[in-house]
Amino acid sequence: MKTFLLIFGILFATSCTTKTSNDYARDSEAPSETLSAGFLIVDGVYNSELIAPFDIFQHTIFHTDGGIRVFTVAPNRDTITTFEGLKIIPDFDFTTSPPIDILVVPSAENSMDTDLENSEMINYVTTMGKRAKFNVSLCDGAFVLAKAGLVDGKESTTFPSDVERYRQMFPELIVHENVSFVHDGSLLTSQGGIKSYDVAMYLVEVIYGREVAKKVGKGLVIDWDPANYQFIVVK
Amino acid sequence: MKTFLLIFGILFATSCTTKTSNDYARDSEAPSETLSAGFLIVDGVYNSELIAPFDIFQHTIFHTDGGIRVFTVAPNRDTITTFEGLKIIPDFDFTTSPPIDILVVPSAENSMDTDLENSEMINYVTTMGKRAKFNVSLCDGAFVLAKAGLVDGKESTTFPSDVERYRQMFPELIVHENVSFVHDGSLLTSQGGIKSYDVAMYLVEVIYGREVAKKVGKGLVIDWDPANYQFIVVK
Repeated sequence: MKTFLLIFGILFATSCTTKTSNDYARDSEAPSETLSAGFLIVDGVYNSELIAPFDIFQHTIFHTDGGIRVFTVAPNRDTITTFEGLKIIPDFDFTTSPPIDILVVPSAENSMDTDLENSEMINYVTTMGKRAKFNVSLCDGAFVLAKAGLVDGKESTTFPSDVERYRQMFPELIVHENVSFVHDGSLLTSQGGIKSYDVAMYLVEVIYGREVAKKVGKGLVIDWDPANYQFIVVK
Repeated sequence: MKTFLLIFGILFATSCTTKTSNDYARDSEAPSETLSAGFLIVDGVYNSELIAPFDIFQHTIFHTDGGIRVFTVAPNRDTITTFEGLKIIPDFDFTTSPPIDILVVPSAENSMDTDLENSEMINYVTTMGKRAKFNVSLCDGAFVLAKAGLVDGKESTTFPSDVERYRQMFPELIVHENVSFVHDGSLLTSQGGIKSYDVAMYLVEVIYGREVAKKVGKGLVIDWDPANYQFIVVK
């Protein structure tokens, strides 16, 4: 199955918008100043979708100048209980949140319903997302970014079983499936779950280059080569 | 690279002790009572090594009777700061820890040095590990299990870059490398990092069977088939 996927990935890469990281056009050199990655956490947030990009981004500080400073932001300073039951103390709330270069929205239990009615949260995401260099969603975090207007005019993906619901809720969007992630300008959307590592590794490569990405990967027992992943980069 | 690894895995499986899960000899039917998985957390614990098995085990409750109840145990009730900076409130401390069927020891920043001198912690691991059905280490958590005497006479693995140090510190042990994990009786040791998902998925299959494991995998965007992983089961 994996062999088939690899072959499919390569064929797809030559016939559509998918490409390997060798084709990345980086607008500038890797930044030497520290970037900030703010992770939105609410009750019911899924652990893996939070932790995968959190770890990948945090480990950059050991392999490049500057690197990425990671922190969590919650609606208030109350302890967050994740979907799986972990109790996390947020670093910041919406009123104390520092500037964010990379806004990360992991999925939560209610990302497709009641969280979308939380206007304070959606407003925060809209405000910070518009200022950020990158907006990253994992799994159903795409619903939150879409509700916040940050997917308008862009192509995206979400958790495989929720693609239909996503399309119904946001019928104007171009939605992909069967790819680990989609990168469209400032927006990166991932299927989530264990695939949450892929999009974060890719973004590290986009920002800092292949060598740094490979070092970060090694620390997490990932033999990073983007040719082994299926993803779409929208030109 | 992946194609090569798959082929290597298959060859290895036929010539050595690796095998697919079709060969598992389960002593009994899947348990219908809830099992407990206690995760040892200390300051400097690595997020991914904690979260990967935490999520895999926790998600079993949606796919089988009973399933696995997960909780964290720390030396005391103080907030734990992980290696990557997440602040976690432990569920239990050593004096309040409930019985544990699956003892999980993720790596921490000092798993190879000062943590091993923490006799209270090592004694706790020894005591709980001897009573547990399974002891699981991720990454350098193997050093803690070995120090606690739970690897005695068993084969194991650890984080790739730390294999040499592991061998030097515990020269009497049979240590494997270049495999995702090693299963030897009650002991399961993983390379760690993203591979931490593999060993947890495997143990879910050992306990609950392939169908449950595939459902758990689907929720985390893992297309679970143990034939795609390299591991060693010691007879």
